[in-house]
Amino acid sequence: MKIGIVLSGCGVMDGSEIHEAVLSMLCVNQAGAETICMAPAADQMHVVNHISSEPVQGENRNTLLESARIARGDIRDIGTVSVSDIDALIIPGGFGAAKNLCTFAVDGAECRVDPDAEKLISAMLDTGKPVGALCIAPVLVAKIAGGKGIPVQVTIGNDAGVAGAIEAMGAVHVECPVDRAVIDETHKVVTAPAYMLAKSIKEVAQSAKALVDGIMGLAGK
Amino acid sequence: MKIGIVLSGCGVMDGSEIHEAVLSMLCVNQAGAETICMAPAADQMHVVNHISSEPVQGENRNTLLESARIARGDIRDIGTVSVSDIDALIIPGGFGAAKNLCTFAVDGAECRVDPDAEKLISAMLDTGKPVGALCIAPVLVAKIAGGKGIPVQVTIGNDAGVAGAIEAMGAVHVECPVDRAVIDETHKVVTAPAYMLAKSIKEVAQSAKALVDGIMGLAGK
Repeated sequence: MKIGIVLSGCGVMDGSEIHEAVLSMLCVNQAGAETICMAPAADQMHVVNHISSEPVQGENRNTLLESARIARGDIRDIGTVSVSDIDALIIPGGFGAAKNLCTFAVDGAECRVDPDAEKLISAMLDTGKPVGALCIAPVLVAKIAGGKGIPVQVTIGNDAGVAGAIEAMGAVHVECPVDRAVIDETHKVVTAPAYMLAKSIKEVAQSAKALVDGIMGLAGK
Repeated sequence: MKIGIVLSGCGVMDGSEIHEAVLSMLCVNQAGAETICMAPAADQMHVVNHISSEPVQGENRNTLLESARIARGDIRDIGTVSVSDIDALIIPGGFGAAKNLCTFAVDGAECRVDPDAEKLISAMLDTGKPVGALCIAPVLVAKIAGGKGIPVQVTIGNDAGVAGAIEAMGAVHVECPVDRAVIDETHKVVTAPAYMLAKSIKEVAQSAKALVDGIMGLAGK
């Protein structure tokens, strides 16, 4: 079983949330499957100073190169990955999912989606291969599914503002505690709150485990 | 219980190995202790492209700011951390441990150590508070302990070249499999191979668990 991991940089404020990415990779490996890391080969929206939380003016970083830090160099340009290469896909959270994979962080429900990410995720939905997303990343799945008229069920925990935007994009939001995942069996989409709710890294590990268990369950069907 | 985590950047080739850092933090949290992340507030030796493995010419990154990505912003300058602030210390691996915490990657047994890291680690050894190190990071402990005439037992797995350098610095190298840790009960030092031997992230999780179990066992004594 090959599980794609869609990264979006390296660091919660401008890329993939590192704990969510690493713990997803761990759970996939512990479940006996192989991870195939990938990211867009495009500049990040921002480079953010992770102590001050302020964007760094005049600095650019490439999403693929920064994601390679989490993947230890073993990573592919998402534009080169075909739906036939993988059995399922997991998208960790972090602001990168809402800045570099789509523009939800600035545009909300009217966000644009990275064309390569959209192509792959759309093909996964079309072929009924499972798609998982943690934390804020379910907005990306909601946007793509909503654009196709698919009323996918997702969770980002219990944030009313983001839940409203998810509904505005044509998806259905379901509240969920940090140690569980919402499994949409019909559309083969699994989502879990992770740091949208987690107060500690061990709670993120619970979210990642619930997500990967759900994905492996659907992928085996 | 408060466990210091010494970071050295963000990415295996120029900073902390991300999986080792995250899984150490997870194990500490799961053991019921608090993590206190810290790093030197100094420029990294290199910025390395994690796809080509080549240094990026003309780019500088700050070790503390990059480490903050792993710590989600909750991090301290190691120069401000006192031995009385923590009950034990863990140093994940990655080339950052051998480039930014000390210069072992270029100078071998003759390496220099970051003064703030040396001050804290030396004080930990003096007060008998446990020090743990993963992967290549045991060379840092060997250098500091060796400089004090303390023949500490450490492992980096089974790499003969690095083991020879460790012996040259005045420490004792002990071979160790990936799922175990070497525990020097006399000097309260725990070390485990992680990616010096690990072939998968689940093996790194085993190393991190063995290390943290060893540290918590010593710290409780």
